[in-house]
Amino acid sequence: MQWEQILAPRMARMKASEIRELLKLLDQPDIISFAGGIPDPRMFPVAAFQEAMARVLQPGSADAALQYSVSEGSAQLRRWLAEHMAGIGIPCEADNILITSGSQQALDYLGKLMIGTGDTVLVNWPTYMGALGAFNAYEPKYDRLDPGSNRSAEDFAAVAAANGGKVKFAYLSVDFANPTGETIDRAGRERVLQLAEELDIAIVEDAAYQALRYDGEPVEPILAMEIARKGSIEDCRTIYSGSFSKTLAPGLRIGWVCAARPVINKLVLMKQAADLHSPTLNQMAVADVAARVFDDHVAGLREAYRGRRDRMLAALEREMPEGVRWTKPEGGMFVWITLPKGMDGAELLAQAIKTERVAFVPGRAFYADGSGENTIRLSFSLNDGPAVDEGIARLARVIKAAA
Amino acid sequence: MQWEQILAPRMARMKASEIRELLKLLDQPDIISFAGGIPDPRMFPVAAFQEAMARVLQPGSADAALQYSVSEGSAQLRRWLAEHMAGIGIPCEADNILITSGSQQALDYLGKLMIGTGDTVLVNWPTYMGALGAFNAYEPKYDRLDPGSNRSAEDFAAVAAANGGKVKFAYLSVDFANPTGETIDRAGRERVLQLAEELDIAIVEDAAYQALRYDGEPVEPILAMEIARKGSIEDCRTIYSGSFSKTLAPGLRIGWVCAARPVINKLVLMKQAADLHSPTLNQMAVADVAARVFDDHVAGLREAYRGRRDRMLAALEREMPEGVRWTKPEGGMFVWITLPKGMDGAELLAQAIKTERVAFVPGRAFYADGSGENTIRLSFSLNDGPAVDEGIARLARVIKAAA
Repeated sequence: MQWEQILAPRMARMKASEIRELLKLLDQPDIISFAGGIPDPRMFPVAAFQEAMARVLQPGSADAALQYSVSEGSAQLRRWLAEHMAGIGIPCEADNILITSGSQQALDYLGKLMIGTGDTVLVNWPTYMGALGAFNAYEPKYDRLDPGSNRSAEDFAAVAAANGGKVKFAYLSVDFANPTGETIDRAGRERVLQLAEELDIAIVEDAAYQALRYDGEPVEPILAMEIARKGSIEDCRTIYSGSFSKTLAPGLRIGWVCAARPVINKLVLMKQAADLHSPTLNQMAVADVAARVFDDHVAGLREAYRGRRDRMLAALEREMPEGVRWTKPEGGMFVWITLPKGMDGAELLAQAIKTERVAFVPGRAFYADGSGENTIRLSFSLNDGPAVDEGIARLARVIKAAA
Repeated sequence: MQWEQILAPRMARMKASEIRELLKLLDQPDIISFAGGIPDPRMFPVAAFQEAMARVLQPGSADAALQYSVSEGSAQLRRWLAEHMAGIGIPCEADNILITSGSQQALDYLGKLMIGTGDTVLVNWPTYMGALGAFNAYEPKYDRLDPGSNRSAEDFAAVAAANGGKVKFAYLSVDFANPTGETIDRAGRERVLQLAEELDIAIVEDAAYQALRYDGEPVEPILAMEIARKGSIEDCRTIYSGSFSKTLAPGLRIGWVCAARPVINKLVLMKQAADLHSPTLNQMAVADVAARVFDDHVAGLREAYRGRRDRMLAALEREMPEGVRWTKPEGGMFVWITLPKGMDGAELLAQAIKTERVAFVPGRAFYADGSGENTIRLSFSLNDGPAVDEGIARLARVIKAAA
């Protein structure tokens, strides 16, 4: 069977990531890895999940937990989330919430909802590579949403038309973004909202790291700003995507979308056709754990990750040679490094593994146009203590050797 | 915001099912419902899941259970499934298995993998409505795969070309199909395999009910027949989709695809982009429960459901008027009723709820061309004892009144 001949055209855009394949091999204990952007499992609220699962699987609740359920998700969890959203400036109802299997599924669904072949999505250069991966299945073009630029709405529209489609939405990772660690400030959010109004497009606000702020002042979500202007979420074009993966645990695959009802209703139909619903059991357990420990648990995470970020930033300050720049994130898990021009992050990784036994993610995969050769992403979520100092010292040696 | 103007063209094919909306209202205790095709929650292996969850969330395993994991799925579960597949005549490796979030996700992914806009999928008239829903997102045409017909491969290809695409695959629910309860016999499976060879297309073998046979001889899976011919699953065009939803519990959303490695590898890339992976915890718990209780538990299910099927068939024999025909399923959950010509299943449902307080699913939604007005689906999975007799008596009265 020659499979290539019966694949849909969209499959041409789904390629294995060489980097991901390489990083799979990094489990050796002598490697210090800043690659994986994953939460520290030592901080999972295990006891709370043990209790929640035991409770949910009790008589009186087990039958529901193990049975099919509605596509929009658990009413209990959606009510908790509506209150949670109100607490961050987004007044809404449970009917404005769809439960998804992690925020990755939300990105896939939002691409499926809006992107026709050849339509344009506006993204930052760089942006979350998982968003590009999700959207690529629907064969979009990308155009650059640059916080510093003054390109007009007409210009974006003209480029999209020349590419055979329309601009459908702007995608932004707003707080402590993956990969840069940077936060879009209030003025930047207002410019995006203004541009979206002029283009009459949606905004996809990816807030996966929203709860993990370690210092500085919180910046209002774009959706909160838009509700403040328009009076109701029902009149808003911003679609908010949230996740429990960075706050409670990623292994349960529970995220959510918060948006105007017409969007949620369409996504419910899509979910019904795509996987019926997210696991009933997981939604009930997360609702139980969130109601009992969310705030306290997240406060503990902030404390721990703040220390790791500080240690990494101090080590970078101490070790990095001239000509290397990096971001100073106020939260999240990532520091983004810009190497001297001409240096290649992917080559540096190969060298770093070979000579110094230190790992990171080369930046190119985060660029929709494949640029960004001289960038790399470090995660500070997993390493603590002297390993951070040692790892950054190793990285500095590799960079100096390559310079 | 006028959402319609930024929706992708594919969204035109995703519509709310009026029937599904109607059936949501059927929770009143005086209604006898044969509508929902869901397993009886009184038979869920609750104790086994309680133990499995407690075990999986123990120290030493909880960190992995709550963490991100690989897109192809749990190695332990995939190994169990490879053995399970060998046991039903399909020798394969764990690398031939992808874990999905229920078999509904497998159908969505297989549509996404193969259907380009305007391509043709061959389906039975009627077929599983959830398959049509999943495929519709990729904008296919449908052509009728009729077990009794002798249409040539050339004819199918010509019709597909006239519709602006190619035939990509044949989709079949093979055992005790949803909705008809019928099983495709060996000769029918061989004809489909022969047709697929001639058209050089894939076969999607939906075996969601495979384990629930109550009598008669098992018919070899199409994939087993093809492996027997060709020597290895790697040379096969049949893609097998399985599910734990009807055997263990649907609320965990765990299913699988079994196919040649090139197919699995593409689906792994797709899953990475679409939801990263199915919940780690759920996969570990299902692997634990399956290894301990699968065979015994399914034997118990067969015993219980066999009795319910027999009771429903006896009641139909006793109550139904002349001119009504129904299937005699050897397994699964469904009996398919053909009403006299001119009668409409949807109108009958409205009448049945109003006058006799009995419910079922009208058949039209299972037809890709919207025909089948005079058909209805009954499920025998939930009702037991005198409620079956009473429900069928009520249904017979409604049919007689409508005749």
